[in-house]
Amino acid sequence: MKNFDINEDPHRRYNPLINEWVLVSPHRSKRPWQGQNETISTETLPNYDPTCYLCPGNVRANGVNNPAYENSFVFENDFAAMKQDEIIFEEDIKHTFFKAKPEQGISRVVCFSPRHDLTLPEMEVSAIENIIKTWQKEYTDLGNIKYINHVQIFENKGSVMGCSNPHPHGQIWAQSSLPTQVEKTQKCLKSYYDKNNRTLLEDYVLAELKVGDRIVIENDHFIALVPFWAIWPYETMIVSKRAVNKITDFTAEESTSFAVILKQLTIKYDNLFSTSFPYSSGIHQSPTDGFDHSEWHFHMHFYPPLLRSATVKKFMVGYEMLGESQRDITPEKSAEILRQQSDVHYKSL
Amino acid sequence: MKNFDINEDPHRRYNPLINEWVLVSPHRSKRPWQGQNETISTETLPNYDPTCYLCPGNVRANGVNNPAYENSFVFENDFAAMKQDEIIFEEDIKHTFFKAKPEQGISRVVCFSPRHDLTLPEMEVSAIENIIKTWQKEYTDLGNIKYINHVQIFENKGSVMGCSNPHPHGQIWAQSSLPTQVEKTQKCLKSYYDKNNRTLLEDYVLAELKVGDRIVIENDHFIALVPFWAIWPYETMIVSKRAVNKITDFTAEESTSFAVILKQLTIKYDNLFSTSFPYSSGIHQSPTDGFDHSEWHFHMHFYPPLLRSATVKKFMVGYEMLGESQRDITPEKSAEILRQQSDVHYKSL
Ligand SMILES: O=P(O)(O)O[C@H]1O[C@H](CO)[C@@H](O)[C@H](O)[C@H]1O
Ligand SMILES: O=P(O)(O)O[C@H]1O[C@H](CO)[C@@H](O)[C@H](O)[C@H]1O
Repeated sequence: MKNFDINEDPHRRYNPLINEWVLVSPHRSKRPWQGQNETISTETLPNYDPTCYLCPGNVRANGVNNPAYENSFVFENDFAAMKQDEIIFEEDIKHTFFKAKPEQGISRVVCFSPRHDLTLPEMEVSAIENIIKTWQKEYTDLGNIKYINHVQIFENKGSVMGCSNPHPHGQIWAQSSLPTQVEKTQKCLKSYYDKNNRTLLEDYVLAELKVGDRIVIENDHFIALVPFWAIWPYETMIVSKRAVNKITDFTAEESTSFAVILKQLTIKYDNLFSTSFPYSSGIHQSPTDGFDHSEWHFHMHFYPPLLRSATVKKFMVGYEMLGESQRDITPEKSAEILRQQSDVHYKSL
Repeated sequence: MKNFDINEDPHRRYNPLINEWVLVSPHRSKRPWQGQNETISTETLPNYDPTCYLCPGNVRANGVNNPAYENSFVFENDFAAMKQDEIIFEEDIKHTFFKAKPEQGISRVVCFSPRHDLTLPEMEVSAIENIIKTWQKEYTDLGNIKYINHVQIFENKGSVMGCSNPHPHGQIWAQSSLPTQVEKTQKCLKSYYDKNNRTLLEDYVLAELKVGDRIVIENDHFIALVPFWAIWPYETMIVSKRAVNKITDFTAEESTSFAVILKQLTIKYDNLFSTSFPYSSGIHQSPTDGFDHSEWHFHMHFYPPLLRSATVKKFMVGYEMLGESQRDITPEKSAEILRQQSDVHYKSL
């Protein structure tokens, strides 16, 4: 019998944002890897690619020409997962097992830059501020549509994350229902707010600032940290220090600070394995259902798959799918490693 | 405005086993794919590989020699995610945000066959019956350990599922807590059983047999189907017709029937894209906490990643991680395609 050492002993951690646990196995990071290696593209991209359907002026799958855009550019996804059609539907409540309902929604693609070869860490802060403005506009416009109650802004970066075009872009899926993951978070945030009259993340940020060991970057308005309950090896979350409900509530300074921390975090990511670091990222914020959502607190998740190098990722498979998410390296160790990364992008060295 | 057509219109379906939804986009299966292709190994495997740490007689990472085993062979995982050490721990209930507790557990590897080159669909039914016997023995032995309250039997098959050795094998992770996913299912099963005095899956099987369009294989004791709420393109579930709590409650006939349906299902999987079909699979059954679990009903999940071909998988990324699982092809269509696959393995044609 020995005393619990969170840095050494297998344990579970609780995620208060979704009310789920993660299994942490600190001792397991020494495991050798003989499995699949990802391929990394070492090809240098041109700043304009005539065959890219996202580059300015080029033709898309549906025959439409992109404008000669100079900053960001938004269009409706040509292969949207949801449609705008209103569907007549009578719920059959007798169906315990075959419960389905139509879903209305809109999918958009957001090109981050006319440059085919630029990614967030390599962009100017002012260009990132421009993307933030675009997100704000889309959140407002889509959120104002009567049947749209949730606007999911996200980015899949890198082919290992299912991204099929290296041209820097993200997506927005706006829809009538709260998606499953958001509903979980909403429940947790609401119950905390009702009890404490403060947002859960307001208090979490204070608690993290006090201990400090999971913080990667801090500026006046935001922190980027590896959450105590992170499941991916280098998962991070950017949280506003102020209890901001949604991206459209940012002050001008907050917008700039957010752009800066986005650039800094993605630079550290790229530097970690000297590669264009793949991830899925996305913003969680207030639903657009017209109700008061004081419980919501703006945050952005980064879920990067890499574990040991540019080619070895963490597989969330058998045990993880059937049992529980599992990680080897501790969040504290990951935060330390990310903190140590240079603030200068490796390509510009 | 048009009437809801579940075969055509985007919709959400409800999963009563975990109380979550999935977004279904039937119209989206026509989307072209320009993204990452998986590599498939076309290499023919030898039936014995001197460098394989799972083959009979070979030496493992820890220096131990495997016996010259003739059927299945079980050993403790050399890089286990949990340890058996008992840990002294005093819960600090003041930690709203930093909630952690030590977890005790045992990880084992189950070699399915001494043959390096055989997978489930290519094995004799009697050899699969042998694996089932091994699973029964492990479930009993591990379950009898005082601190083990859950025994997760699973298999990661194929390098795309993080499997680092093609030698046919699965794993067992046994532990003191109910893992997150199992806890969700337990809650759902319990509340159904308390209300109806029948297991949820008993009634689900009856409902599915009545409509028939999601059933892939049926025999006297089991059905293999694509669940109404499946998230992976060709996800299936094998369910016992009788409300069997756990694998050790099988009659002799049920064991044989289970071996037969396992072989048939995995043959159809291999035939679908003429490839050794990758998946993560695993058994959900009664916890081993010593309590009565009449609500539990034996079932085995298959989560295969492939979508269009042996090299194009479905990516569960941005929207799926932040919002909700999403699928393109409907479960009914997938079931039809699987049903149509030959019962004879493509390699033996
Ligand atoms: O234990 P293995 O086969 O080395 O590892 C594989 O299965 C485990 C259990 O699902 C996962 O945690 C690993 O990420 C995966 O690579
Ligand atoms: O929309 P895309 O970029 O074609 O597709 C990508 O992102 C989507 C949203 O996360 C996923 O559903 C797809 O599996 C993925 O390949």
